[in-house]
Amino acid sequence: MKPIEIPIVEKSLLAIAKSRDMGTARDRLAAMKPQCGFGELGTCCRTCYMGPCRIDPFGDGPKEGICGLSADAMVARNLLRETVGGTASHVGHARHVLLTVRDALDGKAPYQIKGEAKALTLAKLFGVATEGRAAADVVRDLLNIALQDFGRQDEQPNNWVSKRAPAAEQELWKRLGLMYSNPHNEIEMAMHATSMGNDADPVSMLMRLLKVSLVDGWTGLTLTVDFQDILFGTPEVTVTEAAVGVLEKDSVNIAAHGHNPVLSEKILEWAGKLDAEAVAAGAERINVVGVCCTGNELSMRHGVKLAAHNSQTELILTTGAVDAMVVDIQCIWPQLAQVAKCFDTAFITTDDMVRIPDARHIGFHPEHADESAQEIIRAAIDSFKRRRGKPVDIPQHKTTAVAGLSVESIVDILSKVDAADPLKPVIDNVANGNIHGFAGVVGCSSIKFRDKAMTEEMVKALLKQNVLVVTTGCTAHICGQAGLLTGAATDLYCGDGLKAVLTALGNAAGLGGPLPPVWHMGACVDNSRIVDLLGAVAGRLGVKVGQLPAVGSAPELVQEKAISIGGSFLALGVSCHIAPAPRVLGGPLVTKILTEDLQGITGAIVHVELEAQKAADWMVAHIAEKRAGLGLK
Amino acid sequence: MKPIEIPIVEKSLLAIAKSRDMGTARDRLAAMKPQCGFGELGTCCRTCYMGPCRIDPFGDGPKEGICGLSADAMVARNLLRETVGGTASHVGHARHVLLTVRDALDGKAPYQIKGEAKALTLAKLFGVATEGRAAADVVRDLLNIALQDFGRQDEQPNNWVSKRAPAAEQELWKRLGLMYSNPHNEIEMAMHATSMGNDADPVSMLMRLLKVSLVDGWTGLTLTVDFQDILFGTPEVTVTEAAVGVLEKDSVNIAAHGHNPVLSEKILEWAGKLDAEAVAAGAERINVVGVCCTGNELSMRHGVKLAAHNSQTELILTTGAVDAMVVDIQCIWPQLAQVAKCFDTAFITTDDMVRIPDARHIGFHPEHADESAQEIIRAAIDSFKRRRGKPVDIPQHKTTAVAGLSVESIVDILSKVDAADPLKPVIDNVANGNIHGFAGVVGCSSIKFRDKAMTEEMVKALLKQNVLVVTTGCTAHICGQAGLLTGAATDLYCGDGLKAVLTALGNAAGLGGPLPPVWHMGACVDNSRIVDLLGAVAGRLGVKVGQLPAVGSAPELVQEKAISIGGSFLALGVSCHIAPAPRVLGGPLVTKILTEDLQGITGAIVHVELEAQKAADWMVAHIAEKRAGLGLK
Repeated sequence: MKPIEIPIVEKSLLAIAKSRDMGTARDRLAAMKPQCGFGELGTCCRTCYMGPCRIDPFGDGPKEGICGLSADAMVARNLLRETVGGTASHVGHARHVLLTVRDALDGKAPYQIKGEAKALTLAKLFGVATEGRAAADVVRDLLNIALQDFGRQDEQPNNWVSKRAPAAEQELWKRLGLMYSNPHNEIEMAMHATSMGNDADPVSMLMRLLKVSLVDGWTGLTLTVDFQDILFGTPEVTVTEAAVGVLEKDSVNIAAHGHNPVLSEKILEWAGKLDAEAVAAGAERINVVGVCCTGNELSMRHGVKLAAHNSQTELILTTGAVDAMVVDIQCIWPQLAQVAKCFDTAFITTDDMVRIPDARHIGFHPEHADESAQEIIRAAIDSFKRRRGKPVDIPQHKTTAVAGLSVESIVDILSKVDAADPLKPVIDNVANGNIHGFAGVVGCSSIKFRDKAMTEEMVKALLKQNVLVVTTGCTAHICGQAGLLTGAATDLYCGDGLKAVLTALGNAAGLGGPLPPVWHMGACVDNSRIVDLLGAVAGRLGVKVGQLPAVGSAPELVQEKAISIGGSFLALGVSCHIAPAPRVLGGPLVTKILTEDLQGITGAIVHVELEAQKAADWMVAHIAEKRAGLGLK
Repeated sequence: MKPIEIPIVEKSLLAIAKSRDMGTARDRLAAMKPQCGFGELGTCCRTCYMGPCRIDPFGDGPKEGICGLSADAMVARNLLRETVGGTASHVGHARHVLLTVRDALDGKAPYQIKGEAKALTLAKLFGVATEGRAAADVVRDLLNIALQDFGRQDEQPNNWVSKRAPAAEQELWKRLGLMYSNPHNEIEMAMHATSMGNDADPVSMLMRLLKVSLVDGWTGLTLTVDFQDILFGTPEVTVTEAAVGVLEKDSVNIAAHGHNPVLSEKILEWAGKLDAEAVAAGAERINVVGVCCTGNELSMRHGVKLAAHNSQTELILTTGAVDAMVVDIQCIWPQLAQVAKCFDTAFITTDDMVRIPDARHIGFHPEHADESAQEIIRAAIDSFKRRRGKPVDIPQHKTTAVAGLSVESIVDILSKVDAADPLKPVIDNVANGNIHGFAGVVGCSSIKFRDKAMTEEMVKALLKQNVLVVTTGCTAHICGQAGLLTGAATDLYCGDGLKAVLTALGNAAGLGGPLPPVWHMGACVDNSRIVDLLGAVAGRLGVKVGQLPAVGSAPELVQEKAISIGGSFLALGVSCHIAPAPRVLGGPLVTKILTEDLQGITGAIVHVELEAQKAADWMVAHIAEKRAGLGLK
């Protein structure tokens, strides 16, 4: 077996940092070691001031907290709070998008409704009249349905779940007490339940974790994506490039980082309009590049180039070529402001909630979006003026990457093969075994796994075993940088069955070559697109989502959001591989429930595996079990 | 100086536990030592999976997290999440009460509106018509105003704050950006802001902490108490007893524990109705006693005897005389179920959210309140039957305690002295120095401070220096057990000025003796009554609340709720003593802001002091400064 090497992009960027004598997260991680074992095992509780309490599951010290809380309850409580952190983040994102749509409809914010098609599709689903009505009126009705969920105190099932989630799964959730009504009630109750002296039952807390995760899945993700598509349009297939080499020495490079396209769409719009100012300043042009999930949003809808995933954010600043990094929400390392200070880089925060010491703050609110976007771009041009002529160090790595694979665009492609029954070619090939199954490989990029190329090695191992991969988030960047988002990768990495299918489909769809073996479906919130895709396939087959030969993986987990997203897949019956282990290993019952017993509840389990090949092997085996369940060989 | 002794009640109860060879929280605390220094200093972060990160402010290890988060940002983030835990708890309590009132109005739940007077007072404030209208209609209008706040997405100031908070403070909060609209939005945003990669600015997070604390103060506390008074009536002065000696060997002892009177009011009602069944089982009667804040609620409205504060809850079970401990929400140690198992004690959980291994769960929902209450009481009678004749060990300590000092009942008493201007006698005596000032001594009982009688020693030191004390929560139990809630304590402990005033007022009010020097104003949520009292005095004087010669103290902090309550006092301009230190000492900037700079922002600071006399001395000195600010000697 050939030794796994550090990805070339990281290798180049780390060399630059070293040459400039700048520490990186890898150094900070090394300095932090040994990391706290109690924290890693989840048996650390500082919820009340009788504590802090710690339970060493291996030693002969205390086996319970001072209040009597068991190790299992402790780890479940901590994990539930992580889930709330993730869910609250996505629900906040959803609310921000909804209120931007409202402002747009009210003429208060300079955004146009570009996704009329999406609005019409949703209108049909929600029973909103469309005949002879202006799109704005249809959207307003949908908006009111969505906003109603935030105010309701009637315990009726949440509107969005009721209409958007598959019916069979809704029945399961009702039976398990997981169906929610008002998303905010669930966040409040989970924080209440996890405050000292409330829930002490690990099973009760794990069930609440699933419920809060459903809030994440349907209000945090699906609702957000639905209204982002209404506002900005549904992504269509596009070709872009990935990796740090997309920075341009002689252009004004603006790196848009974060998660919320409400900002970045305006940055992109005004970058076009103000290009002449950049040229006047001596630049070739304004080059907006995408970082993290804001990057994914831009690549999905506009083919904007992808400069860096999350764990590369500080590294691309060390090139000296980023004139402005403008950030919105989530996953923004405070370190970025410190690195930016060493260069002519304007590090610009924009959200009221995201304040970072030493950043420049240009408050961005939808109602003044145009003014703020211009101010930000001019700040970047000013930085370029200072930077111009100074040496920069841009590693010349970049790869081609296909993006924009929304469910709608996937169906479009497949319709060219079978217009009457677009999913049939895929389903037939699953049945005959050419496609072994599906894996959603999603989530973060972690410095704990980057240097052994965890994600790309695992994905390659999956492809070899004929598993079609869909991806979102920073994982999409990783796949892009590894060249996995192209038709060429199909030839390079896929097993014979999958290769044959993707080639036939690509040719039949008139693409003149194979489809990529890894489908870039968007940002982290776009995991709802994966759910929609699974729902469509399950619906077509008349089975439950959990019965499909499909599996999830977050191979480089970093964020609380990944926990809540993972929970929403578990609630749906889709098992998930994860690395590193969630912080529950100090609780044997919780560990057993998540890795075994949950199978009997939602039909899904968690599998922890830190090695890429072994993780892929488990996923392949798990898919095989699902195939067997469907009577497939 | 005579050495401080462990309070006699604890001494007796711990002796029983020892005689039975049962470990207690003190043993578990001892086993947990040394407690984690990173946790205590606040410089432990496990928000993301690059961590856990720890910063040792004294060593030469890492000075920032792997993401670059500073120690100050880390402690602020952790403290903000504690604040959310507290606020979410109280907001959940508020919502539960509101929905119970709605169910009562709809005829779905067997509760009568007993607080028409409160409803009329509030109706006037909120501009709700009352003339010729049924009380139920008035209450429904108020309810709708309250519920509107939970659904609004319009950024208008919260209805309840707008009408209930003093105007000058509202102006300050608007200026500082602390005014909130929808309480749930703030909980969601704070959880979002504290997830990895969002807010990294300690100042921004501390301001958000104050905002979330205002949510706690006005939605969590004031709104809850207003509707509890509407539903159950406003407390009137009553005399009761406190300490474990209120248990009765030959009665069916039911200890009601938790925080939400929606359950305990029904327990008390049905205890009366089912008394004959207890007698038939050989008991003298059913003896409902109050524990923790549910106890305070019952003592305030019904003079129910107070058996134990929070840190005594496991200890009173060791008497063997508690036939049922029935709990609702918050501060319920899971250990209680384990202790109960050793006796004929039914440990009964009732809330869906509070599940405890080895507890018996009798789900209590307002709509079936009567049935559940009967089931609970019959379970207690069954326990009694098993327990009858077996030896029990009830320490014969109990004290008289005056309770029920709502603002309304205080004004009633003072009206007997000066009907036209009830507050005048108090204000005159503050002006002339007989009353040095006011201290709100509130919060938890902590095993870390109990054995040196922190709270009662501090209160006695305050009284000696002519500071009138108001109290709530477990602190009220402590004061009760120490005999401080009686007129006799005025003679025993007060300085000459305060003694003279309380004696004159008591006599003038026709009580035939002095008023108590410590006023029991209720449960933790009833801290809003203290705010109302301060607001009334400030309004009468035409000054801001923060200008009053008043100070707060949580001398034995345990719960997250105490953090959010404390924050709401800081936002109001009332400085607070606290022990132990909040978990911020690892962040020098945050420590400085809370203990010094906040003075220039809201006019209040935090003071940490672990010794009773020194804490009292600081409070007296702080009041002296406030007096000087008002031109008083």
